[in-house]
Amino acid sequence: MFGTDAVVQAAIVVRDIEAKKKAWAEALGAPVPETVLTGPAEETNVRFEGGETEARAKLAFFRVGGISLELIEPVGRPSTWGKFLDERGEGLHHIAFNVKGTDAIAAAMAEKGVPVQQAGEYKGGRYTYLDTTELLGCIVELLEKTG
Amino acid sequence: MFGTDAVVQAAIVVRDIEAKKKAWAEALGAPVPETVLTGPAEETNVRFEGGETEARAKLAFFRVGGISLELIEPVGRPSTWGKFLDERGEGLHHIAFNVKGTDAIAAAMAEKGVPVQQAGEYKGGRYTYLDTTELLGCIVELLEKTG
Repeated sequence: MFGTDAVVQAAIVVRDIEAKKKAWAEALGAPVPETVLTGPAEETNVRFEGGETEARAKLAFFRVGGISLELIEPVGRPSTWGKFLDERGEGLHHIAFNVKGTDAIAAAMAEKGVPVQQAGEYKGGRYTYLDTTELLGCIVELLEKTG
Repeated sequence: MFGTDAVVQAAIVVRDIEAKKKAWAEALGAPVPETVLTGPAEETNVRFEGGETEARAKLAFFRVGGISLELIEPVGRPSTWGKFLDERGEGLHHIAFNVKGTDAIAAAMAEKGVPVQQAGEYKGGRYTYLDTTELLGCIVELLEKTG
């Protein structure tokens, strides 16, 4: 399934990424990273709960230990990020795994009653959020390199 | 402060650690870890929001990539784990850093208005949960070896 050698990311959904990334930079003793806006829907082909969405996100990344600490500010709705922020407030949203064979993993999880919550593309890869909150206690993201 | 080479743990607060650890083991393709109950208050000297507490927790750990994935089931109240579960439900509770000089870090964070939420001891070390949710978007745990 996910494998044990591939946790690559822990991600926090925040209301104001500019304030949070400065506070994290200070806490880590690290430079303030740039903020990146995810691409428009025609590039990223985002689907949330089975339907198309125009929602995007602002992202900032810190390299911390062996993983990436990701800050995510939802832009527009609906999305997994916006739903989490609106329902639960700021907090740790997911952990991510590098995988191969996203479709096979998603199919195996579907058999356990776990749906894909959101999926999309980015330059060089695709991502899939599994709604594993009930099964595993948190959302899991699968990251897979493509092309 | 925390440093950037020392994220050691992501932790999920859960209602039923036995069910969740089996589901995680299957998802990771890993053995089911043992469940450990934290020591009694007279050993761990746990303090929550400034006062003593008898609360404990059941813990289980997976080694995933360079970090430890920790499952936590609160036992008794009050504690940071119980408060999180009661207020927010199951979810990612904190990320942890290995540090030296917990007291200096806690003092610097106190100047930013961040209180220590919970602190205690375990064999060979001490832990400190900082209530960084407002400042950083999630709870941060400091782990420090002692003795």
